[in-house]
Amino acid sequence: MNLRVNRAIDSNMKDVVSDLQNLIKQSSITYDKQNLTKCAQLVASIMTKSNFKTELIYLSENEKDGVPPIVYGEVKSRSNPSGKTILFYNHYDVQPVGPIELWNSADPFSGHVEGNYIFGRGASDDKGELISRIKAVEYLLKETGDVPCDVKFIVEGEEELGSLHILDFLTKYKKKFACDCIIWEFGTVDSNDTAIIHLGLKGILSVDLIATGPSHDIHSSLAVLVENPAWLLVRVLGTICDNSGNILIKDWFKNVKPTTDEEISAIANEQFDVDKFKTEYGVLKFTNNLEGAQLRKALIEMPTCNICGITSGYTGQGSKTVLPAKAIARVEFRLVPDMDPATQFARLQTHLFEMGFGDSIDLRMIDGEMPSRTSINDPFVKIVKRAAFDAFGNAVISVSSAGSGPMYNFKKVLGAPCVCIGGSYIYNKSHSPNEFARLDLINKATKCMANIIQACGFVG
Amino acid sequence: MNLRVNRAIDSNMKDVVSDLQNLIKQSSITYDKQNLTKCAQLVASIMTKSNFKTELIYLSENEKDGVPPIVYGEVKSRSNPSGKTILFYNHYDVQPVGPIELWNSADPFSGHVEGNYIFGRGASDDKGELISRIKAVEYLLKETGDVPCDVKFIVEGEEELGSLHILDFLTKYKKKFACDCIIWEFGTVDSNDTAIIHLGLKGILSVDLIATGPSHDIHSSLAVLVENPAWLLVRVLGTICDNSGNILIKDWFKNVKPTTDEEISAIANEQFDVDKFKTEYGVLKFTNNLEGAQLRKALIEMPTCNICGITSGYTGQGSKTVLPAKAIARVEFRLVPDMDPATQFARLQTHLFEMGFGDSIDLRMIDGEMPSRTSINDPFVKIVKRAAFDAFGNAVISVSSAGSGPMYNFKKVLGAPCVCIGGSYIYNKSHSPNEFARLDLINKATKCMANIIQACGFVG
Repeated sequence: MNLRVNRAIDSNMKDVVSDLQNLIKQSSITYDKQNLTKCAQLVASIMTKSNFKTELIYLSENEKDGVPPIVYGEVKSRSNPSGKTILFYNHYDVQPVGPIELWNSADPFSGHVEGNYIFGRGASDDKGELISRIKAVEYLLKETGDVPCDVKFIVEGEEELGSLHILDFLTKYKKKFACDCIIWEFGTVDSNDTAIIHLGLKGILSVDLIATGPSHDIHSSLAVLVENPAWLLVRVLGTICDNSGNILIKDWFKNVKPTTDEEISAIANEQFDVDKFKTEYGVLKFTNNLEGAQLRKALIEMPTCNICGITSGYTGQGSKTVLPAKAIARVEFRLVPDMDPATQFARLQTHLFEMGFGDSIDLRMIDGEMPSRTSINDPFVKIVKRAAFDAFGNAVISVSSAGSGPMYNFKKVLGAPCVCIGGSYIYNKSHSPNEFARLDLINKATKCMANIIQACGFVG
Repeated sequence: MNLRVNRAIDSNMKDVVSDLQNLIKQSSITYDKQNLTKCAQLVASIMTKSNFKTELIYLSENEKDGVPPIVYGEVKSRSNPSGKTILFYNHYDVQPVGPIELWNSADPFSGHVEGNYIFGRGASDDKGELISRIKAVEYLLKETGDVPCDVKFIVEGEEELGSLHILDFLTKYKKKFACDCIIWEFGTVDSNDTAIIHLGLKGILSVDLIATGPSHDIHSSLAVLVENPAWLLVRVLGTICDNSGNILIKDWFKNVKPTTDEEISAIANEQFDVDKFKTEYGVLKFTNNLEGAQLRKALIEMPTCNICGITSGYTGQGSKTVLPAKAIARVEFRLVPDMDPATQFARLQTHLFEMGFGDSIDLRMIDGEMPSRTSINDPFVKIVKRAAFDAFGNAVISVSSAGSGPMYNFKKVLGAPCVCIGGSYIYNKSHSPNEFARLDLINKATKCMANIIQACGFVG
């Protein structure tokens, strides 16, 4: 912990917030290529202003209008040229904003500050996290004239789309990205202001199930003769899970690796504020009446099958009596080690086929990511825990987040331990209307990142 | 058949089409009160121009901004003051237009004419039918200086919403609307140019099933803990129908009245062009592999349960990984004599309760209408059949349409037989994008209506 750096962070919070505000104002929804590009340029200019060596990296010259670039930033240590290298992974793309009418502000990209809160899509996920990391390096440089170890930044533009090309980028630029440890794009702070250090992520398999009926929406009186694709979809979905949410697909759990004893005892030490959770999400009880340690275990260990959305026909005002031409369900499975999305997708395909829906349902993979975990015993975990404890006042290890991301690819290609730590308040409404970040946590996260970089400078 | 009237209709088709075009251009979606009112005024002005005694009828003075008015039109016979009265029932409201991107024209209310076709929402349902009836009376008046029997028009503005107030109107204005026979708002012409004379309508019960989850769309990784309302909805729907579409609600079929022998033999004489149907709707086979006479029987006799729409969460571009706050299904049951929507709704309620969804599903009635049939032996049926045969070249009796409407209320309050006859081509895309009417059938329908009015003039 460097008190001068901490004081610099404290006295420059206006500057930190102002950069975050500008980043939020530059909308960057994952499929909005034009704004994505503008946002990448803005991230690069903020890094350059902070004295990073910065460049936009493309997969190929021809793809300038296709795959969004990675914003790459680098700061070399002059005093410790043969030391370790720490890599920060973040993303500049954000989730779609809808349903727009549920935002308190007319503009979901306002970056509006109110007391301790800054609002807007991306405020926490992931622009708040990104700014705290850039600023940690900036104030280290300003206050000490150097960084104690080499620092690299990878900021991608397809995270919310499932990091479609991150493996290609990592493979192509493996040397450039070489590092000894990785700080993941997000980190959670719970409702007791304790930093949660997640050591892993769940995997994900996201698919569309598409049922097709008549060539256009037709008059519903014809339901006597024409099969309704919405009914077909309901039947298909009914074969995937039972009434308790248990997944019925054959061999679905075959590759699940048992949790280690060390992981089990770590889970026992995790915190979970049941009442706060219920209030925040407006729920009265948990699925299958889970309680106590079961809740924490479920978040870490339980594979899920979630319906992200169903769209078919008309449910608006008035009595539009149609038999819809099409019905779509977006279904998303969360995976635990060692479930592989490609294998699970094949199992789902086989399931549909065996249930008799092979011809009638169009199954499309939308996203697939492997689960991943870093060992509890990795020395980097200790460094992060100490740094987080100093910055946040409290920190606990969590075996895995319930969330997902391409951590598996980073670990596989770069061969470095990977840890989630950051300043995102657990109830920050990311992916929901009225997403926000807490300014006190941005401040602490910035200090935490400076602490981590300094500690890495001492590692031989 | 009056050749002078027929010739007048033929030589004034430009005028007929022009009035229809103006009517289509005045959009009148059922919940768009402002345009509905404008459309009612336009209908009244067209009737006045045709020399009807015309007025807008409201349920009460205070409701001028609430319930859309009925446009009432009347023409008394001078030569036959103690003769019969024929009443035409139509509506000026139309279905919503979506999905807008599937319309070939940018404007669904263009009234654009191309050869034998006029396009636009309402072209067939019901503005084309309405114009043919007004114009039949206009040319009778112009060519003969009189009508051979009294003629009344009721044109309502809530048909597509389930005729929410028609019973109130009929009851309040029972004397004003008194009549001896009723021509229903629509009539179908099949792909062999044969007019189908439907003697009845199915009933309808339309409901919303609403499942509620967390207070807002939340991050899908929480599916381990938080129940997903889309899953709940899928489970509920799965208890309503089996995989063959059979309705599983207790006592659902209890009040179904057996079809009479006369109806059975009428069904045997009906036509159904299987190949044309399949091509028009882009289907390869029928539900449960129905064929031959089963198809016609199903259209008339089979109660259905159709999903008009399901809406929940997100299925758009990108991977928006949410657990939705809400899931809605619009489910519509078609009913046959003597199923009563209120009774059937109560049975559905009981079903949800017994299946354990009583507390978790919010069930709301959107629309309810009784089924209704006119006797095959009614003398009015013969008049219509003869008139239709003369105008269209061919006509067949159909025991019932597969469609629905408030026919039961008309028969109950006014005590008159009610028959569906008109010029709507069976594949006119009503309720779908690119709705159209065929000008040759508008012409024939106009002649048919003139024939019917003339025949009613001869009835003692």
